[in-house]
Amino acid sequence: MEKEQDFSRYLQETTVFINGENFPAKEARISVFDRGFLFGDSIYEACYGEDGFILFFDDHINRLKHSAKLLKFTLYTSVEEIKKQAIQTLSKSGLKSAYLRIILTRGESKISLDPNQAFKNNLVTIARPKPVYPKEYYLNGVYLSLVNTIRNDIRAVDPNAKSGNYLNNVMAIEEAKAQGAYDAIMLNSEGKVTEGTTFNLWIVKNGKIITPPIESGLLAGITRKNLLILIKTLGLNHAIEEIHPADLFSAQEVFITSSTRKIIPVARIDDKIYGDNTSHWPTIANLMHRFDELIQTQPAEYKYL
Amino acid sequence: MEKEQDFSRYLQETTVFINGENFPAKEARISVFDRGFLFGDSIYEACYGEDGFILFFDDHINRLKHSAKLLKFTLYTSVEEIKKQAIQTLSKSGLKSAYLRIILTRGESKISLDPNQAFKNNLVTIARPKPVYPKEYYLNGVYLSLVNTIRNDIRAVDPNAKSGNYLNNVMAIEEAKAQGAYDAIMLNSEGKVTEGTTFNLWIVKNGKIITPPIESGLLAGITRKNLLILIKTLGLNHAIEEIHPADLFSAQEVFITSSTRKIIPVARIDDKIYGDNTSHWPTIANLMHRFDELIQTQPAEYKYL
Repeated sequence: MEKEQDFSRYLQETTVFINGENFPAKEARISVFDRGFLFGDSIYEACYGEDGFILFFDDHINRLKHSAKLLKFTLYTSVEEIKKQAIQTLSKSGLKSAYLRIILTRGESKISLDPNQAFKNNLVTIARPKPVYPKEYYLNGVYLSLVNTIRNDIRAVDPNAKSGNYLNNVMAIEEAKAQGAYDAIMLNSEGKVTEGTTFNLWIVKNGKIITPPIESGLLAGITRKNLLILIKTLGLNHAIEEIHPADLFSAQEVFITSSTRKIIPVARIDDKIYGDNTSHWPTIANLMHRFDELIQTQPAEYKYL
Repeated sequence: MEKEQDFSRYLQETTVFINGENFPAKEARISVFDRGFLFGDSIYEACYGEDGFILFFDDHINRLKHSAKLLKFTLYTSVEEIKKQAIQTLSKSGLKSAYLRIILTRGESKISLDPNQAFKNNLVTIARPKPVYPKEYYLNGVYLSLVNTIRNDIRAVDPNAKSGNYLNNVMAIEEAKAQGAYDAIMLNSEGKVTEGTTFNLWIVKNGKIITPPIESGLLAGITRKNLLILIKTLGLNHAIEEIHPADLFSAQEVFITSSTRKIIPVARIDDKIYGDNTSHWPTIANLMHRFDELIQTQPAEYKYL
């Protein structure tokens, strides 16, 4: 009952557009023949607005196009329409600081796996107040668990396509929560580290900042990309290379990145403790500071307020 | 335009119930916050009615319960309610020969992977005229392709849970169609044969009928199950064992099974030809005949007309 009331309040502060039209969130519905509903046959992006500007919007739109390519989506809805509706949704929300979800499905079709049955897309955009993560996450780090659920194989459903098939991640987070952890780290079928359920993973080992390559089976995060550029600009020692579980446990610092969370330190993975505040993690503290600076100086290309 | 008109006609002959309520198919919609839409966080069954009776209904309901268990779904909607709505949908359709899809989602929630955010289920049932497969499929067999898309790993998203995460299969059928094939056969990450996109696979090699074990990473088909019982009853030489690609190409007969298709012979896999009519496939011809007999003598437990 409490969850239901909480969800009802949640909807009241949510703005939804479907195919160019605004709906109250509690009446925002999609056909049960939409392939996103039937098969998870959809792609999406989660980005955010700060001070009335969408951050890294071109990066997100480019990744959406890349997901479409990987899944062989025909784009009946143009990229310009997608951008327009995204900005319109944020404008309508009136939120200076916002979370934005863009969902593009392969549209409605007969109940048939064959994607050639589709003839249009459905575009759903959802704006909400940007989630505020607890300050402790940034100061004291989070607790992750290395779960038994392995990441989808790159040859089965490529994790680099940001799609509506998220059961793999749902199972992983469920396993982590059952351990009392904040979230999960997943390995691939060869036992190499990939990513979390909604974030990329990084370690600092003997002074080198390391994150695994896309080929390990993970999503090319926008924060990952921009942080890598920043690290190169700063001339810091770094590498994109395979990470084994043993590397996690011999690392001095571990952190995660995502568009909505930016950089969050990891205080613990299962029984391994990395420390309990940023004073133990000089590299992370420096990157958090530098990344915040980077965001402040972002070109204000996409204004929605 | 033609696909759209075709789909519009399709909807006119489709009956939909959502959470106990009947909707015209073109107005049957679900919240965009339904986890089935957001994450493919749903389970389903596809069964069929013949002469006004649902066939193997208990098997399908048991499998739905098994899928729920594998994905740790809380069943807020009782099994009795699910059965009731399924029968109601078929009754309303008035179809003697029907296809029935039962979709149960983890319900609506905040946009969060955490399944504990959910507080109810959504139940969608869809009835349609039973698809009529071309007679040639049964007489002359179909053409399959062994695709590069591998089946979801049992440790990532278990294919034995019949869920709303079907992109893996969508990618596989797309690959097969691009080859001009009817459908796909998928291997697991170890290179062993699993199943097709919506059917189980069988071979006949040196007089032995073989189908791969669930552990290879495949769905426990209802037709597979009932055909295995029939084969045992008939005392035919058979085995449930791993199948390698080489076995496919050295087999004398190959066939597929699914609830809606029953038994269909395979005439060709890529460049390997098995023959062009049932006279080449004595084992399959016998099983098709015997399975049809079995269906005729099914206990008429679930009458909907």
